[in-house]
Amino acid sequence: MRNICLKITYEGTRYQGWQRQETSDNTIQGKFEGLLSRMCGEEITIQGSGRTDAGVHAMGQIANFHTHSDMGTEDMLFYMNQYLPEDIAVVEVMEVPERFHSRLNAKGKRYSYRIWNSSIPNVFFRKFAHTVEEQLDLKTMQEAASYLLGEHDFKSFTSTKKGKKSTVRRIDRIDIQKEGDLITFTFEGNGFLYHMIRILVGTLLEVGLGERSADSIPDIMGAKKREMAGMLVPGKGLILEEVYYETK
Amino acid sequence: MRNICLKITYEGTRYQGWQRQETSDNTIQGKFEGLLSRMCGEEITIQGSGRTDAGVHAMGQIANFHTHSDMGTEDMLFYMNQYLPEDIAVVEVMEVPERFHSRLNAKGKRYSYRIWNSSIPNVFFRKFAHTVEEQLDLKTMQEAASYLLGEHDFKSFTSTKKGKKSTVRRIDRIDIQKEGDLITFTFEGNGFLYHMIRILVGTLLEVGLGERSADSIPDIMGAKKREMAGMLVPGKGLILEEVYYETK
Repeated sequence: MRNICLKITYEGTRYQGWQRQETSDNTIQGKFEGLLSRMCGEEITIQGSGRTDAGVHAMGQIANFHTHSDMGTEDMLFYMNQYLPEDIAVVEVMEVPERFHSRLNAKGKRYSYRIWNSSIPNVFFRKFAHTVEEQLDLKTMQEAASYLLGEHDFKSFTSTKKGKKSTVRRIDRIDIQKEGDLITFTFEGNGFLYHMIRILVGTLLEVGLGERSADSIPDIMGAKKREMAGMLVPGKGLILEEVYYETK
Repeated sequence: MRNICLKITYEGTRYQGWQRQETSDNTIQGKFEGLLSRMCGEEITIQGSGRTDAGVHAMGQIANFHTHSDMGTEDMLFYMNQYLPEDIAVVEVMEVPERFHSRLNAKGKRYSYRIWNSSIPNVFFRKFAHTVEEQLDLKTMQEAASYLLGEHDFKSFTSTKKGKKSTVRRIDRIDIQKEGDLITFTFEGNGFLYHMIRILVGTLLEVGLGERSADSIPDIMGAKKREMAGMLVPGKGLILEEVYYETK
C-alpha cells in the first residue's frame, strides 16, 4: 500500500472543524475522505496531525492516507485542487514511508492567534482575528508568557475531558508582536491540549487588560483546575501554521 | 449646514461597487445613504472621493455629506459601525469646512493590486488577489513600470468612454514587491481613469510573462488606443488604500 502525505490549507469559517462527525459532513476530514475515495476508487480514511475546531484555520495542516491507487502525486495535487471548495487547498503531496503517521510522528506544532486591538472594526480581519477593544499591555502579556515556557502540566489550560492521559506539554516559544492594531501571538511546542492555545490566549488577554498580574501564571498552572485560567477565546483567531516532523 | 467627512473601509466582494445604482441597492454608497438618512432624520446624499468597481476593496475611501443633525462625530462613528454590515466599517468621522468636497479636493490616491503567483491556490487571498500561475519576471515588470511614471496621456489604459474629458494623469510611484508567492503592486498618482490601474496591471503582467517587452510601453501610451494595452484584470485584487488632500 502507498502512503500519501498532504500539506493542506483551509479557511475554517464555514466548517465544523477537521474531524469527521457522524451527524454532519461539514468537516474538512469529511470533505477529503469523500474526494479521495472518488479519486482513488476505493474507500479512503485520512489521518490528520491533529484536530482543529470549528472556525479554526490552517496554513499547514498535515494528513496522510493509504491507497492502492497508482496515480502520480502531481496528478493528485491537480485533481484535488480542481474539486476542493475554494476555501480548502492542497499545497503539497508527498509519498512517504508506509509507517509514517501524521499524528503519532509529529514532533511539534506552530500556531498563531490574532487579536484586533481597536474599537474600530477591521473588515479584512473579521474572520481571522478576535477583537478586543480595550488597549492591551503588550509588555505584561510578554512577561506572563515567559512563565509558560518549558515543560509543565497544562491541566488548567484545557477544557475538561476526564481521562488519564498526560496533560504535560512543552512550549518552546511564545512570541507576541504588534503591528498597528493587530497583535499576533505565536506558539511553538511539542503538542497542545484540547482548547489549550485559546485558553492560554484568553488568560494572557486578562493579564494584558490588568485583570490578572503576570506573576499569577505559576499559581494558575499549579492549581491544575480549568476554572483558575482565563476565558476561551473564539476559534476564528487561530491558525495552525506548521507541523514539525523529525524527517520529512 | 454641517459637512461631515468619513474615512471608510470595506471588503467589496459582495457589492456592485461604490456608486448608487437605480436598479440595485447593493452598493456601498446606497448602504451609507440609507443608514445616514435614518441616523440624521433627513435625506442624505453622500459624495465619495471616487467610484470603486464591483469587487474592489477599500482601506481608506473618503466620503462626505451635509446634514442639519447635531449628533456628535463620536456618536456618529459608534452608530454607523453598529448598523453597518460586517464587511463595511467607518474608521474616522471628521467635521470639515462646508466647502470641502471629497472628490474635487482630492490631490492624489494610493491603490494596491495583489497577484497570487503560484499554481497552488491560496485560500486566504482568494478574495483579495488575482492568481497568475506562470512565473512572472519582477525585474522586467519594474522596468516597464518606470516608463509609466510622470505625466502622460493614459488614454490607452482606460475603458472606452467617449468624451472630451482629459485623459492626462500623473503617476508618482509604482512599487512592485514580492513576498513569497504574493506580488503587490502599489500605485500613487494625482488621479486614475476608469479601469486604469487594472489595465496597467494587466499590461505589466503580459510584460512579466514575456508576451510584451518592457520598452513597448511608450508605444502603447503613444497610440492612445485601448486595444494596444493589455487585459483588464479582475476587481478583487484592487484596494483603494488612501486618498490624499492638501489640508485635512
